[in-house]
Amino acid sequence: MNAGGSSAQSDAQSIISGSRRAAGKLITRIESGDPTVVTILRILFPLGARVPVLGVTGPPGAGKSTITAQLVERLRARGERIAILAVDPSSPFTGGAILGDRVRMGRHNTDPGVFIRSMAARGRLGGLANAVGDTLIVLDAMGIDRIVIETVGVGQSEIDIMCYAETILIAQTPAGGDAVQAVKAGILEIGDIFVVNKADTEGADRTVAALQDAVAFRCGADAPETWRAPILKTRATDGLGIDAVIAAIDAHGQHFTLFPDQLVLRRRKQIRAVLVGRLAEALRTRYEQQGRYRASFEYWLEEVLQRRCDPTTAAIELLAPIGSGT
Amino acid sequence: MNAGGSSAQSDAQSIISGSRRAAGKLITRIESGDPTVVTILRILFPLGARVPVLGVTGPPGAGKSTITAQLVERLRARGERIAILAVDPSSPFTGGAILGDRVRMGRHNTDPGVFIRSMAARGRLGGLANAVGDTLIVLDAMGIDRIVIETVGVGQSEIDIMCYAETILIAQTPAGGDAVQAVKAGILEIGDIFVVNKADTEGADRTVAALQDAVAFRCGADAPETWRAPILKTRATDGLGIDAVIAAIDAHGQHFTLFPDQLVLRRRKQIRAVLVGRLAEALRTRYEQQGRYRASFEYWLEEVLQRRCDPTTAAIELLAPIGSGT
Repeated sequence: MNAGGSSAQSDAQSIISGSRRAAGKLITRIESGDPTVVTILRILFPLGARVPVLGVTGPPGAGKSTITAQLVERLRARGERIAILAVDPSSPFTGGAILGDRVRMGRHNTDPGVFIRSMAARGRLGGLANAVGDTLIVLDAMGIDRIVIETVGVGQSEIDIMCYAETILIAQTPAGGDAVQAVKAGILEIGDIFVVNKADTEGADRTVAALQDAVAFRCGADAPETWRAPILKTRATDGLGIDAVIAAIDAHGQHFTLFPDQLVLRRRKQIRAVLVGRLAEALRTRYEQQGRYRASFEYWLEEVLQRRCDPTTAAIELLAPIGSGT
Repeated sequence: MNAGGSSAQSDAQSIISGSRRAAGKLITRIESGDPTVVTILRILFPLGARVPVLGVTGPPGAGKSTITAQLVERLRARGERIAILAVDPSSPFTGGAILGDRVRMGRHNTDPGVFIRSMAARGRLGGLANAVGDTLIVLDAMGIDRIVIETVGVGQSEIDIMCYAETILIAQTPAGGDAVQAVKAGILEIGDIFVVNKADTEGADRTVAALQDAVAFRCGADAPETWRAPILKTRATDGLGIDAVIAAIDAHGQHFTLFPDQLVLRRRKQIRAVLVGRLAEALRTRYEQQGRYRASFEYWLEEVLQRRCDPTTAAIELLAPIGSGT
């Protein structure tokens, strides 16, 4: 871990000075699962500005990139420097969709006040969410004012990634013939702000009503609700309703200023999820790569393959030498 | 673990005799994360028939449920007894979409040769994929001929769940204006059979061509390819092209009879992923619930929250007492 200590110092310094090139290179190392990045992250972590992180997610086709581009335009207009992280959990290899997103993000590509980075699940053991967490440490140290994470698709990966956001915006499209679809998302439970995009499409008001009902009765929140998640209508292609979204984002930030305990509660919950993810990654690396752990893993793998042992029992046996911990 | 040993025996016996009620009750316990199910699973696992598992996945709106219903109709017509497991990884709480799927699966609901079960990510630590794996042990012991797993949505959860399938069918819709979408799925790399549904829609042939290119050049397969994944067109609403899909499923099964090493290779890879998932779940349970592990977890959680330590270092510290294993 000491190897490259001074180069780690200088890499960290470049990032703190706002070098996009240094940040980009480090993020590529994070993405590829380079374990030596931890020396730099250790330096950067306590120095981070703790800038607000806005998470934008929702089902495919909801207009997340267009909404993000519009929001960034407004935030830029008032002088904020922004980092955008576009994450594609659906693709472990190709990251195809990101390309389209970067094109749509076009007008911000040449703006020196906007740092855009896309990320797919390339090879890293333990998943994309951990890589996103490390990347946020880098972005937070770059001297920007706000981070926007946009994720493509729906599923557990989104929920894991949104764990890093202070304000979570869920984009939806009008339900069309099937009102159930709007309520379906699962990410419903984690949203702070809901945006029904393509508001001029048939069914928009019905979707808003369905979301209002769903949000009013949502369960899974373990804190008393002091924030009532607004349901907003937009037509992001021409910017209609975006000002109200910005106002909601600001209000949500102010809400945490008013109720700092709520922010600590959310951060604690998020860090709990992050730590569990890291532990799983560390354990996985150990069993896949290290001496006797690996041998014992291969032994139990064969036992399950031959149907001599079920997977749960094999996992219990694998963890047994580590002690029961009670 | 010995408590309820004899009742475990009788529960297992009921399931082996094909009792849907006993199977349903056990699956509900699996879903809710009841740790005592392992005693029954341990009995069932070696007795399983190892029936072929067909996985059906793809983006929302691709017609997965309709394709599944059509396939099941054909398989029923030749006398196969089928279990269908509909999984919704996008919803940790509501499982909304499943409802619609069950309605669409309507005609099979009253068929005694079809066992239908839906499953969402309700509360289980360590995720849905482990619950799916345990459920497959139950279904495999019930005296059926084939299992069909259908998953809703796109993302890592799908890939984790498809880990249990011997034959993976990826459903797609014609790309419309955006040919990139079709190639995007990420699940591309794991497909054995591709189905472009709604084949009469504009863009179907372009989607087929894009998939053919993508499949020809796909990476990530660690075995020499002896199977060339077919790209088939269907219009599932009226059953057009479904016979060819059945033929492809049969051919893929025969392929494994011809190349048994390929099947062992796939099973080994899958069990590897399964074991890693189980280990992560076991570790997570330990850190969240057990005495000194929990105390140390809470300590490092606070260190990260206060920015005195980064998450990776905290995870390393948490795993340290467990020994380095080298």
